[in-house]
Amino acid sequence: MRVLFITESGFEDTELLCPKYRLEEEGFQVDIAAPEWGEVKGKIGYTISANLSIDEAEPEAFDALFIPGGKAAEKLTMHESVIDFVKKFAELNRPMAAICHGPLVLAAAGILKGKRATCYYKVSDKLEEAGAIYENTPVVVDGKIVTSRQPSDIPKFMKEVIRVFKS
Amino acid sequence: MRVLFITESGFEDTELLCPKYRLEEEGFQVDIAAPEWGEVKGKIGYTISANLSIDEAEPEAFDALFIPGGKAAEKLTMHESVIDFVKKFAELNRPMAAICHGPLVLAAAGILKGKRATCYYKVSDKLEEAGAIYENTPVVVDGKIVTSRQPSDIPKFMKEVIRVFKS
Repeated sequence: MRVLFITESGFEDTELLCPKYRLEEEGFQVDIAAPEWGEVKGKIGYTISANLSIDEAEPEAFDALFIPGGKAAEKLTMHESVIDFVKKFAELNRPMAAICHGPLVLAAAGILKGKRATCYYKVSDKLEEAGAIYENTPVVVDGKIVTSRQPSDIPKFMKEVIRVFKS
Repeated sequence: MRVLFITESGFEDTELLCPKYRLEEEGFQVDIAAPEWGEVKGKIGYTISANLSIDEAEPEAFDALFIPGGKAAEKLTMHESVIDFVKKFAELNRPMAAICHGPLVLAAAGILKGKRATCYYKVSDKLEEAGAIYENTPVVVDGKIVTSRQPSDIPKFMKEVIRVFKS
């Protein structure tokens, strides 16, 4: 099973690395795409390699999508190629997960309209503007979309992510 | 089930945070002890709170022990109170896990003698000096002791940690 992470410099380090390790523990293959391939830096200080540019990623090639948080996610909402990718991926009706600022990318792609979701509390207004039903809880599952608020939610978040990604 | 992490400033951030979240996902309660209680800083930049000093931690109160890496672990080997705690904990025959520089603490407590174990490659000589049988593989399980080399081993490491901690 292949999972695509979409990120950019400014990602919240543990929101990318801990879920990546967790999914790998479960036997999933994790690829990382950024607007341009190459090194991306976390806000705290880790550097990871994006092995794909978003332009070369094929939505059909991935079984699930994962969007970590940090300011990276806000930057991603301004990339047409990213929003386009997420819209196409959503049409495939495959599972998606996002944490912290990550749900803003799903919101920008218009796929949270009428859906229950959560995100970092400071950007909850943006989720509601996009038509989402915001809930201030560690993890929200609506159909195949799993969202979460912040790093301390990772234990509860990943439990649901694994469950939904496998179902 | 209660797990005690022992650390100090200079811990490798993901080697503490990702296992902590993973164990919490599994329903374990995680406590963090340092030579003195209070804030400890990771080498990359996270800050976490040690809710216990090692002096006030009772070995009998914990079901398992976990030692993350980073230079923190080397510093811990010079604290008599830490070595004393680990020796007492080992006598209880409960599971222990350590990664990267973390196994040096087990070595300093004399409990790796004649045991198969791994650690960060640059300090493998110290493990062998303490009588361990060093193996350069992502994870080594010898009885109830689980050791690992580095952050990229976390997926394989945590799979075994969970299995051994639960058995």
